[in-house]
Amino acid sequence: MAKPVTSVKTTVVRGTSAHAATRALPEETAVAIVLNGSTQAVMMATPADLEDFAVGFALSEGIVADTGGIETLEIVEQPDGIEARLWLADDPAEAIAARRRAMAGPVGCGLCGIESLAEALRPLPTVGAGNTLTIADVDRAVTELTSAQLLNARTRAVHAAGLFLPGQGIVLAREDVGRHNALDKLSGAMARGGIERGTGAVVITSRVSIEMVQKCAMAGVPVMIAISVPTAHALRLAEAAGITLVAVARGDGFEIFTHPERIERGEQTHVA
Amino acid sequence: MAKPVTSVKTTVVRGTSAHAATRALPEETAVAIVLNGSTQAVMMATPADLEDFAVGFALSEGIVADTGGIETLEIVEQPDGIEARLWLADDPAEAIAARRRAMAGPVGCGLCGIESLAEALRPLPTVGAGNTLTIADVDRAVTELTSAQLLNARTRAVHAAGLFLPGQGIVLAREDVGRHNALDKLSGAMARGGIERGTGAVVITSRVSIEMVQKCAMAGVPVMIAISVPTAHALRLAEAAGITLVAVARGDGFEIFTHPERIERGEQTHVA
Repeated sequence: MAKPVTSVKTTVVRGTSAHAATRALPEETAVAIVLNGSTQAVMMATPADLEDFAVGFALSEGIVADTGGIETLEIVEQPDGIEARLWLADDPAEAIAARRRAMAGPVGCGLCGIESLAEALRPLPTVGAGNTLTIADVDRAVTELTSAQLLNARTRAVHAAGLFLPGQGIVLAREDVGRHNALDKLSGAMARGGIERGTGAVVITSRVSIEMVQKCAMAGVPVMIAISVPTAHALRLAEAAGITLVAVARGDGFEIFTHPERIERGEQTHVA
Repeated sequence: MAKPVTSVKTTVVRGTSAHAATRALPEETAVAIVLNGSTQAVMMATPADLEDFAVGFALSEGIVADTGGIETLEIVEQPDGIEARLWLADDPAEAIAARRRAMAGPVGCGLCGIESLAEALRPLPTVGAGNTLTIADVDRAVTELTSAQLLNARTRAVHAAGLFLPGQGIVLAREDVGRHNALDKLSGAMARGGIERGTGAVVITSRVSIEMVQKCAMAGVPVMIAISVPTAHALRLAEAAGITLVAVARGDGFEIFTHPERIERGEQTHVA
């Protein structure tokens, strides 16, 4: 089976000295999502947790409403990459055909596959009330996610998405060279693990672009915590979807951008 | 015209204190590439340097071989986003139709729009000999790119791609929330500026995934310098395309991953 990390030789240059070294690099493998025998999409992803990835992708894209819509799931290595074969309870032919026609786009931008500006932003569900988090919860979520990034500890080059539950900490974490993929993997792991929708917070190591908000809205995630900042557009989407967006979270503080009511700040001193 | 930066209000939390603040966030806007009247793709991008983006996209995707293939280029603001309208000298209908059929994919992953694993990696041209860079050149390229990142200085959240020419320094830099877009913008600016293909080095602030290598190969770039690391797959593509891949470049040293002959190391002490 394809491995998620490859060791390569490199020449390290510092000033006038140089030495040979070995570095562990993350892999990117072409992964085809095959629905009832027909390839729906091919993406580059780190070959780990691909069952979670396939399920999360199907959920994020609205192909199935829950894992009950997936009858079997098989990961099959091929010469050029890996196929994730999903057999769905309902024949997806019509829905997929319609979706494919609406999705022709050539590049990696987070929003390919749409044919007009009007289609650029799909309607998103509004998330539920969820639960509140304390300030200490937010800081803990970020710190614990770092400890859970096992692939990143080896490569220093992969993103992660984790699920934090108050009182429990980070209960799931998934990694990938692509931040979107890490979030799809987490979403799939949450659904496969039977975790109740709409609880806790999702923590991500990246910036927050609109696709990250879209995926969280589809997964019913009420709180997003990001280590880096959102785009202004992502902020507007989170506001509209009812998601609490916390960003610039580094384990020792953070900024709240939307729906601050889910962050408990009862005992704070308000400056300014 | 859409602005690349939006100021928003935020609540900054540090321990038990909190205060209101303002933060400048980068924008993401839906940008449609319209070829001879037909929308070819819609991407989320930072609304700046969109002429460069449109030209670079057309070059990276092989839609035109050079700027001579583009008769007119117009940036038109619409209610839902921005259209970049290119009118091409040759009717692109057949080529585009074939390309669209081969490019149906739903998500932002850097490789959407392909229908089978076999199509996942398009054949790439091999770059020319190019010129050599000294160790000081590489360090200078990284340091100077930082100074050229004007949007990033305001937002701390956008990627950049710059062109370094030996003896001149960073002569062009372009920024975007998407690293792919920053590179397409640079590629377009290079072509529009009449910069000779195959000279100097492209410096990027991100990791190196395969699409970044693909775009550089299409632009004839002989040397890539990245602040972060490559994926193992991207390294193999750079090796095959003849590109010198330098990464983990932080202004005070770097690592050479492929084709080291373009980096002059004559006076170095070789350790180990």
